[in-house]
Amino acid sequence: MNEQELIESGRRRIAWSRAQMPILADIGSRFAGSKPFAGLTIGICLHVEAKTGVWIETLLKGGARIAITGSPGSTQDDTAAALAALPDVRVYSHSGETFDDHIRHCRLVLDAGPDLIADNGGDLHALIYGEDAHGALRKSLRGATEETTTGAFRLYEELQCRDFPTLVINDTQAKRVVENRYGVGSSVVDALMRATNIMLHGKRIVVIGYGYCGAGIAQRLRGMGAHVTVVDREPLSRLEAHLEGFSTDELPNALASAQVVITATGRSGVLDGEMIGLLRSGSIVANAGHFATEIDLAALVEAADAVVRVRDQIERYEMKDGRHVYLMSQGNLVNLTAGDGNPIEIMDLGLALQSLSLARLAQSASGLAKGAQAVPRDIEREVVERALAAWVTGRDTP
Amino acid sequence: MNEQELIESGRRRIAWSRAQMPILADIGSRFAGSKPFAGLTIGICLHVEAKTGVWIETLLKGGARIAITGSPGSTQDDTAAALAALPDVRVYSHSGETFDDHIRHCRLVLDAGPDLIADNGGDLHALIYGEDAHGALRKSLRGATEETTTGAFRLYEELQCRDFPTLVINDTQAKRVVENRYGVGSSVVDALMRATNIMLHGKRIVVIGYGYCGAGIAQRLRGMGAHVTVVDREPLSRLEAHLEGFSTDELPNALASAQVVITATGRSGVLDGEMIGLLRSGSIVANAGHFATEIDLAALVEAADAVVRVRDQIERYEMKDGRHVYLMSQGNLVNLTAGDGNPIEIMDLGLALQSLSLARLAQSASGLAKGAQAVPRDIEREVVERALAAWVTGRDTP
Amino acid sequence: MNEQELIESGRRRIAWSRAQMPILADIGSRFAGSKPFAGLTIGICLHVEAKTGVWIETLLKGGARIAITGSPGSTQDDTAAALAALPDVRVYSHSGETFDDHIRHCRLVLDAGPDLIADNGGDLHALIYGEDAHGALRKSLRGATEETTTGAFRLYEELQCRDFPTLVINDTQAKRVVENRYGVGSSVVDALMRATNIMLHGKRIVVIGYGYCGAGIAQRLRGMGAHVTVVDREPLSRLEAHLEGFSTDELPNALASAQVVITATGRSGVLDGEMIGLLRSGSIVANAGHFATEIDLAALVEAADAVVRVRDQIERYEMKDGRHVYLMSQGNLVNLTAGDGNPIEIMDLGLALQSLSLARLAQSASGLAKGAQAVPRDIEREVVERALAAWVTGRDTP
Amino acid sequence: MNEQELIESGRRRIAWSRAQMPILADIGSRFAGSKPFAGLTIGICLHVEAKTGVWIETLLKGGARIAITGSPGSTQDDTAAALAALPDVRVYSHSGETFDDHIRHCRLVLDAGPDLIADNGGDLHALIYGEDAHGALRKSLRGATEETTTGAFRLYEELQCRDFPTLVINDTQAKRVVENRYGVGSSVVDALMRATNIMLHGKRIVVIGYGYCGAGIAQRLRGMGAHVTVVDREPLSRLEAHLEGFSTDELPNALASAQVVITATGRSGVLDGEMIGLLRSGSIVANAGHFATEIDLAALVEAADAVVRVRDQIERYEMKDGRHVYLMSQGNLVNLTAGDGNPIEIMDLGLALQSLSLARLAQSASGLAKGAQAVPRDIEREVVERALAAWVTGRDTP
Repeated sequence: MNEQELIESGRRRIAWSRAQMPILADIGSRFAGSKPFAGLTIGICLHVEAKTGVWIETLLKGGARIAITGSPGSTQDDTAAALAALPDVRVYSHSGETFDDHIRHCRLVLDAGPDLIADNGGDLHALIYGEDAHGALRKSLRGATEETTTGAFRLYEELQCRDFPTLVINDTQAKRVVENRYGVGSSVVDALMRATNIMLHGKRIVVIGYGYCGAGIAQRLRGMGAHVTVVDREPLSRLEAHLEGFSTDELPNALASAQVVITATGRSGVLDGEMIGLLRSGSIVANAGHFATEIDLAALVEAADAVVRVRDQIERYEMKDGRHVYLMSQGNLVNLTAGDGNPIEIMDLGLALQSLSLARLAQSASGLAKGAQAVPRDIEREVVERALAAWVTGRDTP
Repeated sequence: MNEQELIESGRRRIAWSRAQMPILADIGSRFAGSKPFAGLTIGICLHVEAKTGVWIETLLKGGARIAITGSPGSTQDDTAAALAALPDVRVYSHSGETFDDHIRHCRLVLDAGPDLIADNGGDLHALIYGEDAHGALRKSLRGATEETTTGAFRLYEELQCRDFPTLVINDTQAKRVVENRYGVGSSVVDALMRATNIMLHGKRIVVIGYGYCGAGIAQRLRGMGAHVTVVDREPLSRLEAHLEGFSTDELPNALASAQVVITATGRSGVLDGEMIGLLRSGSIVANAGHFATEIDLAALVEAADAVVRVRDQIERYEMKDGRHVYLMSQGNLVNLTAGDGNPIEIMDLGLALQSLSLARLAQSASGLAKGAQAVPRDIEREVVERALAAWVTGRDTP
Repeated sequence: MNEQELIESGRRRIAWSRAQMPILADIGSRFAGSKPFAGLTIGICLHVEAKTGVWIETLLKGGARIAITGSPGSTQDDTAAALAALPDVRVYSHSGETFDDHIRHCRLVLDAGPDLIADNGGDLHALIYGEDAHGALRKSLRGATEETTTGAFRLYEELQCRDFPTLVINDTQAKRVVENRYGVGSSVVDALMRATNIMLHGKRIVVIGYGYCGAGIAQRLRGMGAHVTVVDREPLSRLEAHLEGFSTDELPNALASAQVVITATGRSGVLDGEMIGLLRSGSIVANAGHFATEIDLAALVEAADAVVRVRDQIERYEMKDGRHVYLMSQGNLVNLTAGDGNPIEIMDLGLALQSLSLARLAQSASGLAKGAQAVPRDIEREVVERALAAWVTGRDTP
Repeated sequence: MNEQELIESGRRRIAWSRAQMPILADIGSRFAGSKPFAGLTIGICLHVEAKTGVWIETLLKGGARIAITGSPGSTQDDTAAALAALPDVRVYSHSGETFDDHIRHCRLVLDAGPDLIADNGGDLHALIYGEDAHGALRKSLRGATEETTTGAFRLYEELQCRDFPTLVINDTQAKRVVENRYGVGSSVVDALMRATNIMLHGKRIVVIGYGYCGAGIAQRLRGMGAHVTVVDREPLSRLEAHLEGFSTDELPNALASAQVVITATGRSGVLDGEMIGLLRSGSIVANAGHFATEIDLAALVEAADAVVRVRDQIERYEMKDGRHVYLMSQGNLVNLTAGDGNPIEIMDLGLALQSLSLARLAQSASGLAKGAQAVPRDIEREVVERALAAWVTGRDTP
């Protein structure tokens, strides 16, 4: 594709997402009147893909100038081209970038002199606090948002960021219920079906972890006819799964007969070397938890003679003991890597939280404490009410 | 890709499918001993894709020589290359072929002088009965199979094929339950999620038709959290859907609030011009019934000012009255075109019926009546028992 | 209660049922105009309970005179008193009647010289064909209905009734779907909960038989959180249950861990002496199939040292080998004996089939063949459409 | 029944419950060895029914002397007789007692000079703090338990009980999940079916409140085929219900088409005069929330011309405007009054919490703060682990 074709392709992608994002559409209309970001620059680090594109449009309506970088591996070049063609937007991201490229791009975002930042995983915060070059931002920034709990943890513990308020988007009950239970539940089913083309009906699937994500995954797989066994080391979670109608078991027993194994615990090393030794030959293993470390990749590699890519997103590990197992997406979040990530509408809610949080920071950051903190309750409530209006009363999409 | 890379790619595809097809693996092992096709040539018309590839391997184990063509649009070139590299296999098919190419390829299959044919939609039968060039096959063929009900109908009514037995694979209760209810139910959900990335939770979806396919689709969508309304003009089907917990309605009312509409009736023109006029602006329309004619494409085109491809498999129709609607896969079977078709295991059962039917024809066609007929009950029963053994007792996959 | 109190009590019972039976209400209104039974006597053998009472009222509106007897064990004395107080109704039934009483009462019904009979299990037919006293009815009857498949079988095979048409109510797809799948499914759950007060969530329950009744029972128990294992000796039924998401197993394995066992096969001796020997100590056993013979009561008694009534409808068998098992309702249909039978609305549909069948026989029996036969399709269709109108469009109940 | 027959009847009832209560059985075995209550008297106020009977047996094994009274209306006379026949048990309760009788009985329990009390609704605490006669207990009691949240509220706010520790059984996550979601969900379905005999399949049922109880009720009704609409004034609760697949609506709209209405909010006056005016004629109304005040009975009476008892637990209100509505159990908790209350196993868990809490108070009350407080976490965890062992690993019941 030449540049113009790339831009057209990106615009089509963004248009499709926009049509499914009525909450951002409403917020954009309001921003177009109130111009909360007039004269302000927002520095962003978030996946450069179509849903993010709709969000950028929303912020532009509010008068913002934008400097954005993505995350390694998730950038859509056509979406990037379409965004770069917009006035007041600078994009520093391409699909093939390395981690070093990424850090360099983050610096370019900060060089734009943002008044607000929207961070993902704490990379922008880390540069502000870790390098003198951008240290002035500690004082000049009105505030920031951070998308993830992982990133929020870095801010609290490692970086001790206390010069400006950072609103942590993931710390809302709305996001936990909507995105973690329903969004992840359905996107894991999507990823599993599209990457493998296997039949879920009657399949023996073990879901490890029965928190919001795990419970959502278990429910949706059951909804597709799978025979789900839930494993959770917390007794009350296991009891709840049992009463909900799921089989439950200890992990070693469960693995012995599992055809598919999905981790969703939020802990590292859930499938460690010992557990990997118990996997049934022919089983498919995937991670849907927050960290790529739930499956101990090093232990898996060590137990294997050979690794063969057998299908997009699937590698076959030929184990030294004669078994073979299939690992999806190299242990990365399977719904993001093997599928399209969470459904568009789910991101509409999440990015609406981002939008209103940034507007609050732009307009009345002085009313907020310094440091990482939850999104104000009135913003969460407003977004939930907008979601209700958009999804439940079922007004026509724009 | 060069030729060797193409072959390697095709082999990997086939290998993945093979790993999920234990029924064919068992049948192949038996065929390797009994050689039911020794000295015989089988002429095949079926989608040249990975699952078919595993079937070809199975027939080869039984001593067959193979001449195969595909269907326009569904050929995977790498799978074709991998099959063509096998001894005793001739492949006449490529991804870009036109309908004329297809008929020419069918003739080449018949030129191979098959002893048995496996037909799909009756194209091979039509040439045998419609052209003198291959008329000799009417006498020399031991027998045939026909995959589809549509094709079977052609044989009964149009072609009056009565010179040799033709076993109709789709006329088995096993295939109706396993493939139509469970296979189609899950592959439609797969196709819808992968092509649109929309959220199914809370989505108002109308399923038109509550037969095996429609009921399966409705169940699976509900399993994903959708709000399903069932429409069926047969009172008892509607009553059954209502008691099963689904909302039901008349079609016009149902369309007024639907966000997604799926046809699965087996009839033409279900969404005709009048019904198209009632579609809610922004709604997504897809067909999962046997015929691409369930949605009246001509009426849709006539009601529209413009048609824009907005995403792979999705076109946006700008209606003259200001509404817009999204049509998936141009009204073709959405699970086959926007997804990977039915799950691999489902095809394992269907192709096992094919394999044993061909073996019966090879060995004891004289015990069968002439003309189109159902698969013998003992073959259906054997395949069901093999499916039970493979899926339920859960023996390790090969 | 004195007689007047009994009548009042019966009227209240009937009134409650009437309020849930809109289909009969509509049919009654029509009958009140057309008087299809003017001058005719209908002889009835059916459970004398409140729902039957509403049906009697409906027939009376059509101009009928009624002579009715019940079945041993199911007569409600207050309902009987309320009906007997109506003009043109003779009731021969009381709660404590023996089988001999029952036969005597049937003779009294026939003595009334009916023009039409409504039979249940073939008892009236058996007297007409077995005793000279009522032989004249063979010629004079316009026709009959028979409620059950069991009774129909008697008519076909044993009695060779061929002098007048007998319409078999149970031989309709509407009744199979509505009553067998949904009615029985929910009334078994009702009976199990009310008789035992046990928790269904997480309970390991084996359902034997996966026909209409068994599938309905399995679905509803799963809907209450139970862990259901389906046993069916037909491979395709087992495969279907597996793909539907149920565990399946061979009977001996299934019994080993079952906490509750429910038979719904339509066959005798499903739980025979050998299977009874495999029941887990403490398990609860119930029959929901057509015949009380699904559980081999004799074998159970023989294997036991003692039998103790531990709760209404539950007996504890102290087995000679030290185990104990609980049998519900002595192996009789658990939903009829331990509960109130099928929901009122379900009977509204069944008794509507009865009403229109009797009206057809009254008015145009000559258009029907002699002997047992299915209900005419137009009657089934009309009742289904009335059920749709009553249940789905949700008009106010009378 | 004479006294001996009454005792025998009570023993059979208790025996049936005992067979379903393996957690108490295990605790009883341990108590039999450790005798935590040796020499101590426990004063109890709790429903004198069979499950409580099993608990009394458990405390006796631990060496306790017991003085018990029940609650007005819930005492089973045969269970009371069976308990009174045990050594070391005094029972002050009978089925026909008035509220004055109840208070007198509570005083008799306190006259026994208890070392520990187990209270229900705070009645015993109120006498200890409200009357000088038992004021000495404020100092002498080792501690107390309180079953309900309502009662706990009285202790905190009204009575200011701060002389000894009171462990509040309902304040545990285990009880909320197990009893409120699963126990109440299934017992409401049980009560509704047994009291009305209506069909739940396809029934339009409105559940008001989507907390633990409401969500459980909605799930189980859907599991029985009902068409459930959820009403909750909290936006996130409504959004969650919507994404879970339920219809949701504003209360006035929902009432307009509801055939059954169930309140489960924990608030008073949910169905007030205005809402009562919107109930559909013929609808059935029931309360499953904590307080009998969720339905405004006074407003209902005022709007009615007449009230008629039409069936056990159901009254028909003839409204002045011509409508009629059915109220279940006079607005009292429908699962306790129209059914047998929560399933036995659920109470096994709840009474196990009671047993271990009392044992902790008996042995080491000094380690606990004074006043009302949650059950110690280690006790909750132990009970959950025992429930897992009893229900999940499925050991034979005693």
